[in-house]
Amino acid sequence: MSQLSDKIADRSAIIGILGLGYVGIPLGLSVSNAGFKVLGFDVITERTEQLNRGESPIKHIKDSDISAMVASGFEATTDFSRTTECDALIICVPTPLNKSREPDLSFVTATMDSLAPYLREEQLLSLESTTWPGTTEQVLLPYVEKAGLKVGENFYLVYSPEREDPGNLNFSTQTIPKVVGGHTKACLAAGMDLYGTFIDTVVPVSSTAASEMVKLLENIHRSINIGLVNEMKIVADAMGLDIFEVIDAAATKPFGFTAYYPGPGIGGHCIPIDPFYLTWKAREYGLHTRFIELAGEINASMPQYVVEKTVRALNEVGKSLKGANVLALGIAYKRDVDDMRESPSVFVMELLREWGAEVAYCDPNVPVFPKMREHNFDLKSIVLTPETIASYDAVVLLTDHSDFDYEMIEKHASILVDTRGKYRNSSRQIIRA
Amino acid sequence: MSQLSDKIADRSAIIGILGLGYVGIPLGLSVSNAGFKVLGFDVITERTEQLNRGESPIKHIKDSDISAMVASGFEATTDFSRTTECDALIICVPTPLNKSREPDLSFVTATMDSLAPYLREEQLLSLESTTWPGTTEQVLLPYVEKAGLKVGENFYLVYSPEREDPGNLNFSTQTIPKVVGGHTKACLAAGMDLYGTFIDTVVPVSSTAASEMVKLLENIHRSINIGLVNEMKIVADAMGLDIFEVIDAAATKPFGFTAYYPGPGIGGHCIPIDPFYLTWKAREYGLHTRFIELAGEINASMPQYVVEKTVRALNEVGKSLKGANVLALGIAYKRDVDDMRESPSVFVMELLREWGAEVAYCDPNVPVFPKMREHNFDLKSIVLTPETIASYDAVVLLTDHSDFDYEMIEKHASILVDTRGKYRNSSRQIIRA
Repeated sequence: MSQLSDKIADRSAIIGILGLGYVGIPLGLSVSNAGFKVLGFDVITERTEQLNRGESPIKHIKDSDISAMVASGFEATTDFSRTTECDALIICVPTPLNKSREPDLSFVTATMDSLAPYLREEQLLSLESTTWPGTTEQVLLPYVEKAGLKVGENFYLVYSPEREDPGNLNFSTQTIPKVVGGHTKACLAAGMDLYGTFIDTVVPVSSTAASEMVKLLENIHRSINIGLVNEMKIVADAMGLDIFEVIDAAATKPFGFTAYYPGPGIGGHCIPIDPFYLTWKAREYGLHTRFIELAGEINASMPQYVVEKTVRALNEVGKSLKGANVLALGIAYKRDVDDMRESPSVFVMELLREWGAEVAYCDPNVPVFPKMREHNFDLKSIVLTPETIASYDAVVLLTDHSDFDYEMIEKHASILVDTRGKYRNSSRQIIRA
Repeated sequence: MSQLSDKIADRSAIIGILGLGYVGIPLGLSVSNAGFKVLGFDVITERTEQLNRGESPIKHIKDSDISAMVASGFEATTDFSRTTECDALIICVPTPLNKSREPDLSFVTATMDSLAPYLREEQLLSLESTTWPGTTEQVLLPYVEKAGLKVGENFYLVYSPEREDPGNLNFSTQTIPKVVGGHTKACLAAGMDLYGTFIDTVVPVSSTAASEMVKLLENIHRSINIGLVNEMKIVADAMGLDIFEVIDAAATKPFGFTAYYPGPGIGGHCIPIDPFYLTWKAREYGLHTRFIELAGEINASMPQYVVEKTVRALNEVGKSLKGANVLALGIAYKRDVDDMRESPSVFVMELLREWGAEVAYCDPNVPVFPKMREHNFDLKSIVLTPETIASYDAVVLLTDHSDFDYEMIEKHASILVDTRGKYRNSSRQIIRA
C-alpha cells in the first residue's frame, strides 16, 4: 500500500465522494481543505451543476465555502467512469427504510453498480452510510472481489460512519472524532492514513462490522432516551407535573444522568430510521430488539398525543377541531435547520387535517412547504403578527426555532399548545403536549 | 418561620436524622460538619450503640469520622420521644418493594407513627427516601395535620431526594447539588435554608411531587440505559461483536452519546427498585410505564444469560454444569463496595447451585457470605492463588473489584467467563457473558 500511502502523504491522491448531500458536501469541504483534489459524484445533474457554479444547496453551508472548494480544483460530475481517476472513494448516500420499515440499500448498491466497472488497484473504498453490521463485508466486498482485486493487498476496504450534526456549531467534521474499521489490518491502516489527514482524532476498531454497530448504537441510544422522556412526559402530565421542570432538576445531578427532552416525535434522517437497521439484522439471529421497537412505537405516537391535547383544549372552549383554524409553528425537524426529513411537525399537520382542521404554518426556515414524497401541503409560511396569531383557534408550537417572537406568540395566541417546554414558566394558561 | 430560620442561621437548631444507614450516616456527618448538633434515630439498638462508640458500620466511612461527629455532640438513640428536641427532622429510611414488586412504605409510616406524638410547632420535616410522586402530600401531610399543626405557617414540610453514590470519590454529600420541593412556598424556603447550610448547591422545584419525580427519573434513566446495553450485548454477541469495544468507540462521539456498560444484571438499593415506584403509581392513572417494565425484565434476565454462557462453555469441553466446580469472582453489587443489596452476583450463584454446580466465591470486600433475607450461602471468600484458580472448572468474573489480580486469574483459569469486559483485549479464549 505504499503507493496509496505516499499519494495521501503528499496530497497528490484524488478523493472521490459519492453522494453530494448533508454528509458528502461537508466531507468534501474538509477533504479539500486538507489539500486534496476532490471529485464529487451524484446522479442528480441539477445538484452537480449547482455545486460547480459554487452554490450551496444546504442552508447551513455558505456559497463562499463551495466556491472556495471549486477554486481548489473540486469538480462535481454524474459521470461515474471518472471514479477511476480517484485514489479513494467515499460513499455517502442515503440508507432509508422501505414502506415495510426494512433497510433500503438501493442507493448503496446502485452506487456500487455504477462504479464497479472502474475499480482498480491501489484504491481505498470507504462506506460512510449508516447500515446494519456486516454490510461492508456482505454487500461491498463481493463487488471488489468480482473485479479481481485483492482486498488488503492491492485494494483497501473500510467502513467509517458519518457523525454529522447539522446545525451544531460546537463541532465540525474535523473536530468530531471518526471511527474506522477495516476489512483487514492493511485496510484499517489505509483508512487511518486517509482520515488522519483531515480529522483530528481517528478511532480504530477491530472490524468493519464493529464500526457499523458503533454508529447504530449511537443513534439507538438517542432514540431510546427520547422515547423514554416522551413516555415520562405522558406519566408526569397525568400526575400534574411538568416534565421539563423535572428533567432540568434531574440534570443538576453531576453524574449518572444526561438530559434528553421530549417533543412532538422524532425526526431527521437518522434517529427514526437507523435503529431499525439493527432490528432487521437481529431477526436473522432469532433476536428481537425490544427497546428499539418500543422507542419507535412511542416516538411515532407522539404526534397523535399532541393532536389529542389540542382537541381537548378546543373542547374546553366548546369547539371541535373540525373546522378550527390551527397554526403549526415550526415544521423543520429540529431547531434552526431547514431540514424537513421525517419531521414530526408534518405528521401533526396531517393528523390535524385528517380531523378536519384548517391548517396553516409558520417556519422562518421553510418559506414554502416543499414537495415531499409522502406528504402534500399547498402552503406558504404565514407572517406572524399579533393579528394573525390571534386569528387562529389554536397555535401549536412544534419546532422551537430561535427566530420566533415567543413573547408575541404568548401574548396573542388564543389556545397555545407547547410541545417544547418553551413556556414552562409562563403565567398564562399553556397546554403542555 | 423566623424562629426556625434564626436557629438555622446561628446553628443552635438541633437536627434529627431518622434512619442511620447508607444515606443517614453521611448526611449526619455533613450536618455535624456544618456546626449543628445532630441527633440520630434508629430502631436497631446495635446500630445506635455502635455509632455512639464512634464506630462506622459502613466500609467506605472511617471510624475517625464517626468519633469526630460524636465529639461534636452527635448522639444516636432509639428513643423517638427525643425528636421533640429537634428543630428539623430528616427521614432517610429504606423504601423497598414487597414480594409483589409494589412500594413498601412501611419504614416511612413506622417512622411517622413513632414521631407523630412528638411533632411540635416550628419544626421542619424532610423526607429523603425515594418514593412515588405524591407521597409527601398523601402520606406525611395527614400525620402533621392530625397533630394540629399548620403546614406552611407553624410547620414546614419538604421532600429532598438523597443522591448518595457510595464509592464515588469525585463527589461528597456537600458537593452533589440537592433538589428540594416544599409543600408551600414557606416550606420550600425553610428547606432551602437548612440544606443551604451544608450543601453547595440547592435546587428548588415547584412541589414535593416534582422533587419526588426528579429522583425517580434519575434512576429510571439509569435502569433503562443499562437495560438497553444489556440487550445490545446479546445482539452484538450473536453477531460476533464485542459490545465493550463498540461502546468505547461510540463514547468518542463528543455529543449525544453517554456510555453505559452491560453486566450480569443490576444491583444496589436504587436502580432495581425505584423505577417500580413510578410504575405502581402510574397504574392509578391508567398508564403503563413500558420502558421501566422492559428494562426490569431484561436486567433481571441477565444472571440467566451468564449461566447459559457458562453451561455452553463447559459443554464445549464435554462437562455438565451439574457437578462442576465454579468460582464466582466479586459478589458485592458493584466495584469496590461491600454492599450486597440486590447483587446480581448472588442471583448468578443461586442459578449455578440450582443447576447442580459446586459454587465458591472470592470477594476481598466480603470475607464471609452475609445473612440475607432471601439468600442462604454458608460460604467464606476463598484465597486466590494460581492453584486455587486452576482447581475450578469455570471462573466467572461478576464484580470487577480493583483488588483482583486479573493477570493471575487470566493465566490460570480453565474456563474464564467475563461479564465486565475486563478481558476485552485478552489474547486467550474468554467467554463473553
